[in-house]
Amino acid sequence: MAAAIQPDFDLAASLFAGLSRTTRRGRGIVRDSYGVGEQAAHDLARSAALAIDLEVEVDAIGNLFMTLPGRDRGAPRIIIGSHLDSVPQGGNYDGAAGVVAGLCVLSALRRARIAPDWDISVMAIRAEESAWFDVPYLGSAGAFGLLDPTCLATPRSDNGRSLETTMEQQGFDPRPIRQRQRLLDPSRIRAYLELHIEQGPTLVAEGLPAAVVSGIRGCKRFRNARCVGEYAHSGAVARRYRHDAVAGTVAFLHHMETVWRRQEEEGADLVLTAGELFTDPALHGPSKIAGKTHFVLDLRSLSDATMDAVATEARAAAARIGAAYRVNIDLGATSDSPPAVMDGRLRARLMALLERPFEMPSGAGHDAAMFAKVGIPSGMIFVRNENGSHNADEAMSPDDFAVGTRALLGLLMDFPL
Amino acid sequence: MAAAIQPDFDLAASLFAGLSRTTRRGRGIVRDSYGVGEQAAHDLARSAALAIDLEVEVDAIGNLFMTLPGRDRGAPRIIIGSHLDSVPQGGNYDGAAGVVAGLCVLSALRRARIAPDWDISVMAIRAEESAWFDVPYLGSAGAFGLLDPTCLATPRSDNGRSLETTMEQQGFDPRPIRQRQRLLDPSRIRAYLELHIEQGPTLVAEGLPAAVVSGIRGCKRFRNARCVGEYAHSGAVARRYRHDAVAGTVAFLHHMETVWRRQEEEGADLVLTAGELFTDPALHGPSKIAGKTHFVLDLRSLSDATMDAVATEARAAAARIGAAYRVNIDLGATSDSPPAVMDGRLRARLMALLERPFEMPSGAGHDAAMFAKVGIPSGMIFVRNENGSHNADEAMSPDDFAVGTRALLGLLMDFPL
Repeated sequence: MAAAIQPDFDLAASLFAGLSRTTRRGRGIVRDSYGVGEQAAHDLARSAALAIDLEVEVDAIGNLFMTLPGRDRGAPRIIIGSHLDSVPQGGNYDGAAGVVAGLCVLSALRRARIAPDWDISVMAIRAEESAWFDVPYLGSAGAFGLLDPTCLATPRSDNGRSLETTMEQQGFDPRPIRQRQRLLDPSRIRAYLELHIEQGPTLVAEGLPAAVVSGIRGCKRFRNARCVGEYAHSGAVARRYRHDAVAGTVAFLHHMETVWRRQEEEGADLVLTAGELFTDPALHGPSKIAGKTHFVLDLRSLSDATMDAVATEARAAAARIGAAYRVNIDLGATSDSPPAVMDGRLRARLMALLERPFEMPSGAGHDAAMFAKVGIPSGMIFVRNENGSHNADEAMSPDDFAVGTRALLGLLMDFPL
Repeated sequence: MAAAIQPDFDLAASLFAGLSRTTRRGRGIVRDSYGVGEQAAHDLARSAALAIDLEVEVDAIGNLFMTLPGRDRGAPRIIIGSHLDSVPQGGNYDGAAGVVAGLCVLSALRRARIAPDWDISVMAIRAEESAWFDVPYLGSAGAFGLLDPTCLATPRSDNGRSLETTMEQQGFDPRPIRQRQRLLDPSRIRAYLELHIEQGPTLVAEGLPAAVVSGIRGCKRFRNARCVGEYAHSGAVARRYRHDAVAGTVAFLHHMETVWRRQEEEGADLVLTAGELFTDPALHGPSKIAGKTHFVLDLRSLSDATMDAVATEARAAAARIGAAYRVNIDLGATSDSPPAVMDGRLRARLMALLERPFEMPSGAGHDAAMFAKVGIPSGMIFVRNENGSHNADEAMSPDDFAVGTRALLGLLMDFPL
C-alpha cells in the first residue's frame, strides 16, 4: 500500500459539524442510548458510509457496521469501532471521534482505490454509556452475548422505560440479549481498533497530541462501605471514649492513601478514589460526634493482582483502624470488572507510528474492553482532550485528531503486523 | 449549722416521678421551651415549693424563683439553678435534676428549722436547650440582659411560631429581651450552684457517682467549612493531576487529629470534632473524584488560648494541605462562645466534700456559663448518667443523685467558704 495517503479530514470536519448540529440540546450534546439523539448520530454515519460506497448493515440490537470489502471476503475482518451515544449534556467527541476516524480512514482507502486484504468494518456501537441505562457497554457486550438478560428490565434514567421496551420502540430486538446469543463471532475478527478522546488530563499536562493505550483499568469498588460508631455530644466526650465515625473514616482513608503511594513507589498501576462520603443528614449535627458515615472506595488498576492486594490490605486496615477508633468499618462487598490489556503487537506498532510515542493506561472503560475480553487482539489510541469528558466543554483539536487518525491509518496500511 | 441533716430524698423521688408522669410523650420526655411541657414542670416545682413554704416568684420572662428567706434579707443571695425544659424525646434528668436537688436541699433546711444567713433561691430556668428555639440559655441569658433582641424572631422548630409570639401566648413579656433589660443584678448574687447530669461517658467509665466541674468548655466552630476541587473520572486521572476534595479533606482532618493529640500530650484541654462531612449528593458519584465537600470543625476547650492556637493552626494547615492537594480548603468564619471557668474556692470546697474527689470539664454548655460570664462565683456538680443525654434512655441512679445533692447541701452548710 502507498504510505502517502491521508485520512479524509474534510469528511471528519463535516461529520463533527453535523453531529453537533443535530444532537446539541442547549449547551451540551444529548445522544441518548437507544433514543432519538443516538439514532440521529447513526443516521449521519450511515449516510456518510453510503456516500463513500461502504456496505451498511445493522445487527439485531442496533449496532451499525459500515464495511469496506476486502479482497478475501471469507477472511476474518478488522473492526474499527466506538460508540455514538453520549451522556446527558456531554461533549461532541466522546465516542463519536472513533467512528468518525474509522470513516475518514475508509474514505481515504476508497479514494486511493486501495482494496484491503480483508474486510474492514467501522462499527458504530450502541449504548456504551451507563448514564441512560445503568449497564455499560450494552452494544458491544450485547454483540458478544455477554449481557446478563436481567439487564433488559433496567429503566432508562430519564423516563423509566425498560431497556427491553425502549429497544422494541426503536425497532430493535431484545431477544439476542435475553438468550445470551452471540451476534459477532470473535474468531471472525482479526483485530479491534478504537480511537477515543482521553477522558483525563494526562495528554494536556504532557503536551502530547495522542497516546497509545496500554490497557483499560479494571475496577474493584466497595460501593457500600460504611463506618458505624455512636452519636454523642461533641463537647462532652473525651477522645478515649469516642466512637467517632468520621474520625475512623478519616484515619482509614488516610491510610489507604499511604497504601496508594507505596504501590506507586513500587511501580504498580493504581488509582484510588473515595468519591462519595457522607454523614447522615437526618442524624448528624454541628455539635454531635457522628455515629455513621457512608462512603465508596473505588480501586482501579491494569493489574488484577494489584487490586486484590490493595483490597486485602483495605479489609485488614478496616478491622485494625476500626478497633483503634472503637468503630466498625464495614467495607461490604466489591463489584469487580477485570482489566483489559491491549494487544502487545498492536501497541508496539502504534508506538512506532507516533512521532512522540507515549503509552498510558485508560482509567475509563471503553468498548475495546469487551473485544479484548473475548480474546480479540485490540488496540486503542487516545487523543488529547481539554476540559475533561462527560461535559459540554470537551475540546479536541482537529490537529490532535489528525495525529491519532494518521496512526490508525498507518496501522491498517501495515497489517498484518 | 448541724452537719447530720440529709436532703429530702422523698421529695426528690416524688418530683422525678411527677415529672416523668406529666411530661413523658411516648418513650421520651418532651418539655418544650416556653411550651406546655416546660410549663407542666414549672407547675410541679411551684407546688412543691409552696408545700415546703418557700417564697415563690416568676420574672417577666418566666424564670421561677423559689426562695428560703435568710436572716439578712438585704444580703446578696445564693442561687441554686438549672433548667426545666428538655430536648424533644429527651430524658427526665437533663436540667430537672438540678432544680429537684435545690428543692430537696431547701426542704431539708426547712425541716431542720435552719434559717440561712441570707436568702437561698432555687431558680427553675426557662429554655436552656436550643432544640426548640435555635438560641441557647434563653432564660439565664435573658435574665442578665445578654440576649440579642433579634432572637425574638427565632421560630420554634416544631411549629414555626416566633419566640416573641410564643412568650406572649404563655403570658410572659418579651420586652426585657427587646430592651436588653437586666432582670437579675449580678452584685446581688453571692454564688450560683448547679447540679446536672454528666452528658458524656466519663463518670460511667471512671466508676464514680459524681464530679466537680472545673469549667464549661468554650466552643470555636467552623460551621461552614468546605473543600473545593474538581470533579473528574475516578479511573482516568492520576494522583498528581487530581483536585480531589475528599482526599484534601481527609488529609486536613487527619492532620487536625495529630494537632489534637499533640495538645493532649502537652496537657491542654481540647476536644475536636467533625460531626458533619459530606460530598454533594447531586454531583458526587461512585466513579467520580469529588469536586467538593462540606464539613463542620468544632473545637472546644476550657482555654481561649488553646482554641485560638488550634484555630490558627487549622487555617495554616488548610492553606498548606489545600495547596499540596490542589484544592481550596476554605474554613470560613467561626462562631465562638467563650469558656466559663468555675470559681476556684467553690471547686476546692466541693472536691473536699466528695468521698472520691474527681474534677472534669463540661463539654456541653450549661446555664452556669451565663452566671460565670457576668462575674458571679459559680460551681457545678456532675452526676453520673448512663446512655448519654438528649435521649429517652438517660439514666441517673438515686444513689448517685444523693452523692451530688449531699455535696450541694454540704457546701451550703459551710457558706461563707
